[in-house]
Amino acid sequence: MLPAGLPSLSPLRAIQELSMNDLIARRERALGPGMRLFYEQPFEPVDARGVWITDVDGKRYLDAYNNVPHVGHAHPRVVAAVQARMASVNTNTRYLDPHVLDYAEALKATMPAELDTVMLTCSGTEANDLAWRLACAHTGGSGAIATSYAYHGNSTMVSALDVVSTPSGKNEGWVATVDAPIDRSAEDGDSEAGSATFDKGMAAAIETLTANKRPPAAFYFDPLFASDGVRLPAKGAMEAGLERLRKQGGLVVSDEVQPGFGRLGEAMWGFEAVGVMPDIVTMGKATGNGYPLGVVVTRREIVQSFRNKGRYFNTFGGSPAASAAGAAVLDVLSSEGLQANARAVGADLKAALIQLGQRHRLITDVRGTGFFLGVELAHRRGGEKVPATAEARRAINLLWELGVLVGLTGPGLNVLKVRPPMVFGKDDAAILLDRFDQAMGRV
Amino acid sequence: MLPAGLPSLSPLRAIQELSMNDLIARRERALGPGMRLFYEQPFEPVDARGVWITDVDGKRYLDAYNNVPHVGHAHPRVVAAVQARMASVNTNTRYLDPHVLDYAEALKATMPAELDTVMLTCSGTEANDLAWRLACAHTGGSGAIATSYAYHGNSTMVSALDVVSTPSGKNEGWVATVDAPIDRSAEDGDSEAGSATFDKGMAAAIETLTANKRPPAAFYFDPLFASDGVRLPAKGAMEAGLERLRKQGGLVVSDEVQPGFGRLGEAMWGFEAVGVMPDIVTMGKATGNGYPLGVVVTRREIVQSFRNKGRYFNTFGGSPAASAAGAAVLDVLSSEGLQANARAVGADLKAALIQLGQRHRLITDVRGTGFFLGVELAHRRGGEKVPATAEARRAINLLWELGVLVGLTGPGLNVLKVRPPMVFGKDDAAILLDRFDQAMGRV
Repeated sequence: MLPAGLPSLSPLRAIQELSMNDLIARRERALGPGMRLFYEQPFEPVDARGVWITDVDGKRYLDAYNNVPHVGHAHPRVVAAVQARMASVNTNTRYLDPHVLDYAEALKATMPAELDTVMLTCSGTEANDLAWRLACAHTGGSGAIATSYAYHGNSTMVSALDVVSTPSGKNEGWVATVDAPIDRSAEDGDSEAGSATFDKGMAAAIETLTANKRPPAAFYFDPLFASDGVRLPAKGAMEAGLERLRKQGGLVVSDEVQPGFGRLGEAMWGFEAVGVMPDIVTMGKATGNGYPLGVVVTRREIVQSFRNKGRYFNTFGGSPAASAAGAAVLDVLSSEGLQANARAVGADLKAALIQLGQRHRLITDVRGTGFFLGVELAHRRGGEKVPATAEARRAINLLWELGVLVGLTGPGLNVLKVRPPMVFGKDDAAILLDRFDQAMGRV
Repeated sequence: MLPAGLPSLSPLRAIQELSMNDLIARRERALGPGMRLFYEQPFEPVDARGVWITDVDGKRYLDAYNNVPHVGHAHPRVVAAVQARMASVNTNTRYLDPHVLDYAEALKATMPAELDTVMLTCSGTEANDLAWRLACAHTGGSGAIATSYAYHGNSTMVSALDVVSTPSGKNEGWVATVDAPIDRSAEDGDSEAGSATFDKGMAAAIETLTANKRPPAAFYFDPLFASDGVRLPAKGAMEAGLERLRKQGGLVVSDEVQPGFGRLGEAMWGFEAVGVMPDIVTMGKATGNGYPLGVVVTRREIVQSFRNKGRYFNTFGGSPAASAAGAAVLDVLSSEGLQANARAVGADLKAALIQLGQRHRLITDVRGTGFFLGVELAHRRGGEKVPATAEARRAINLLWELGVLVGLTGPGLNVLKVRPPMVFGKDDAAILLDRFDQAMGRV
């Protein structure tokens, strides 16, 4: 029964609200406290295709946020590929199976030749965690460097790299941070000054680790620096800093969970867009279009160092179904020309969002490229930009009401994250822009 | 071309060998060095149903080994459940979705009421890794205890618990080991002496951690102690040791990756079979019948401690497809009466294997229960048993030739692991016994 004093609802709407409250209560009981839900008014999707999600009330949402369904929600080729393997034999890499080889070879073909060895896991977290084990075994180091607002996943080791998760066990001073390099569009973005700032940060981080007797094993970075606020450095801006790291024996881990698989449009991999040659590349989220699959690609000698020192086996990593999912994603990306789509539609979208910035003063910057754009909302106070956190939250909820899904990121949670499935088209971009304009007018 | 001097092969067989060698060479190139393959003569499965696997040559194998396809290879209900969700909407737990709640509630219903909160991951590794983060957050401790030959998974943290993986970074003395309790069938198995031995080992492990300033956060155990050689303790044998641990603030983590989901026949969960009430239960492998899914079940207060201290989110854990896979496994287990099947067929199989031991002197013990049996092969030298490692390896390869798949385990790799999918029937057991008898006659 509805509590007294609530505004009267239509009978259908009242039933829907009760049903939603029931789901929320069941969720709290079964999954425990503190589980976040997207949006102020949580919603229940019941179907999805391409870039469209339908909720339980039949309302349709344009999805400009989800990056797990990389080639579109419920892409029939991925669904069919997984189903065929699950309905047949779905064992593990200790049996001979061509699917895992077909996938590994197809993936290698998108990479520089030096990155010749593929290891398969269940998630981006497992991939980043395995990268650490590889780096420690190969370098003999035991210190890690990440950027100030990095997020690389949820395992004990990987979560120690970020500031939002609680480190487990004792903090032994084995993680040091460096500020993300500035965006390529910033004043110093393509200058020696920008490069020098990053190099200086790297030098300080190495010094911290060395003082703690933790020589650097690896530096982890997301080439797009998404959780650092979407900051895409100019090519070469990281070179001096990374050269310094390498001289100290550390490896470079490019976390492609967010920028990889053509999302940036201008490149298949984030490290290419920023002109870095990594030692280890990690992938997740997009990899299997929703089927749990993570990947490490690295040099053979690094795997050799690791295998020399101990056993490693991943039960689900590289199963026929996982491999088929991964291969289908690569196949669709190529046959549907989705990287080119991200480049073209993304470029127009970015230009239009910059245009909107002329009308809405809160928009102080539009960063990123392809299908990963960050729209910064801030108040200008004197020469300073003060994050418009509350307004950004209001904006994504208004957009949700208007039937468009976007997210929030950045240290100040004031950057709207526009990160649609790769099949997002020109018409979709037009809808997004129209609703964006409306929402910004009401923020 | 075949090297000179090889025995002549039929043309078909020669082509098959070339094709297999090609797969092995591709595997080495793409997946790197040191990847193990099952059996001396690796084989390529191309189809599987229930307990039968067909290889590329059309030869059929009775699968008495694989525990990932828990309710049978390619079970149509699991395949259909996953397919339906993948073809519809397959998001994450930040959206409202009834599938994850249906699954969590069904799983809780199989557990003691205190274990009321379910967290979903992608693998047993992720579940055991999350258990560590929960235990550290709840207890404030930072030391771990595991058994001498434990294996709990492959992340940086979890792999530090075992002796076969290389620890990453510095070893800070935060892991101590205790010998697994003896088997319930051993002379002291159900006596005060057996219980006292385990308690003494636990006391020493706690002392080690305390000396290292690493108060115990958690003790991990596989209730069947599979990698310790398949040792199923008597009910109550661990009580004194665990009580001692709890007094020092440590939590008990029951790793149900191998014994869980009714495999032991006598109980749905391993901890029930050994009379232990855990604080945290972890699951993997069997959970989704091959779809990557791991689970943590624990008390609400423990999750609360963890959530109070930081953020945790698992992208693929609890997705609609993963939840549907998990729910289908529980549903099939119940509707096909598979726990009762494991109990009945497993008991007859164990009795018959013990009988075989009368004829084959190498068989020195048959341990385990339900569908997890360990057949120990050893040479008796005086009063001692010397592991018959080479013979055990030969036995599993002979069984493979005879069309039956079993595995090896134990510190001396001399324990044949009989661990079939749960749909293994009486006729299958008869085939296994016949081939087992033949193989032992030729070892």
